[in-house]
Amino acid sequence: MSGQRPGEVALGFDPATRVEAGLTYIGRIRSSWSKGDCPKNIRQARETGQAGRIELDSAYTPALTGLEVGQAVQLLYWVDRGDRDLIVQSPAHADGPSGTFALRSPVRPNPIALATVVITGIEGAVVEIDAIDCFDGTPLLDIKPWLATVDAPPGWRAED
Amino acid sequence: MSGQRPGEVALGFDPATRVEAGLTYIGRIRSSWSKGDCPKNIRQARETGQAGRIELDSAYTPALTGLEVGQAVQLLYWVDRGDRDLIVQSPAHADGPSGTFALRSPVRPNPIALATVVITGIEGAVVEIDAIDCFDGTPLLDIKPWLATVDAPPGWRAED
Repeated sequence: MSGQRPGEVALGFDPATRVEAGLTYIGRIRSSWSKGDCPKNIRQARETGQAGRIELDSAYTPALTGLEVGQAVQLLYWVDRGDRDLIVQSPAHADGPSGTFALRSPVRPNPIALATVVITGIEGAVVEIDAIDCFDGTPLLDIKPWLATVDAPPGWRAED
Repeated sequence: MSGQRPGEVALGFDPATRVEAGLTYIGRIRSSWSKGDCPKNIRQARETGQAGRIELDSAYTPALTGLEVGQAVQLLYWVDRGDRDLIVQSPAHADGPSGTFALRSPVRPNPIALATVVITGIEGAVVEIDAIDCFDGTPLLDIKPWLATVDAPPGWRAED
C-alpha cells in the first residue's frame, strides 16, 4: 500500500489477495471525468450539469426490460484504483481520521461504489443517466431499481 | 442453470465463469432466517420485528470508528445461492416477466444484495441492526453510511 497520513490505520494484509467470490463486468460507465477532475460524490456530480451514460455489454440488454425513463436506479461499480487495506482514513477534505465503514471513500476492502441516479434515456444497450461521479470507463457491476419502501431508512423524511 | 419459467430468458454463458474482479468477505450477517422463511425484502423483514447482527472479522473492527447507534447504513452482501445467468425473470410473486435490472431478485449477474438498516448497537466487532432480509451466515462485503444528500433520488419526498 502507499504512504499513510497521520491517524490512518492499515490492515496487516491486502484484501485483494483474499478472494472469496468473483465479479463480472456487465458494461462500462461513460462520464466526463478522469483523474484530477472527478466529483467527490453524486451530489457534486449532479451540480456540474454533466450527464453520464451506461454502455451495457449487449448480452445483457434484455435485463433492462421494465426500466423506464424518469426512474431512479442504484448503480454498483468497481473503483479499484486505490488501496484496499486502509481501515481508518483521513480524506483530504475531512477534519480527521474516520473508519472506512463510516466513509464513502473508494478506498475500502471491496471497492464497490454505489450511486442513485435517474434514467434519462434507454436505447438498446445504452442507458443515459442524469449524472455520475466516477472516471470514464469504470466497470459496471449491477443496476437495481430504487424503491422508497426498501431503500429509504425507516422514518426518514426529506428536509429540503 | 435450473429450469426456466415461461417468459424467462437466460444468457448464453454463466457470469460466474467470467471473473474480472475479486471480492473478500469482511464478516458474516447473523439472522433468524433460513431457506423457506426468509423475508423477500428489508421492509418485510422489519415488519417481523426480528433484529439482525453483523459479526465482522475482527481485523476490520477499527473500520467502524465514527459509526453511531441510530445511524442508517447500507449493507452490501453476497447472495450467490442461485443462478447468475437469468436476464429476464418471472418471480413467483410477480405478474409476469421483468428484466433482472428492474428487479431486486438475488438472481443476477453479480449477486450483491443491498439493504438500508439502522444500527442499534456496536460492541467490538459486533454491530446490532434493526432488521435484515438474508439467510443466517450470509457473507458481508461492505458497510456504507446512508447519506440523504447522496442516496435519496433528486427531488424525492417521502409520501407516507
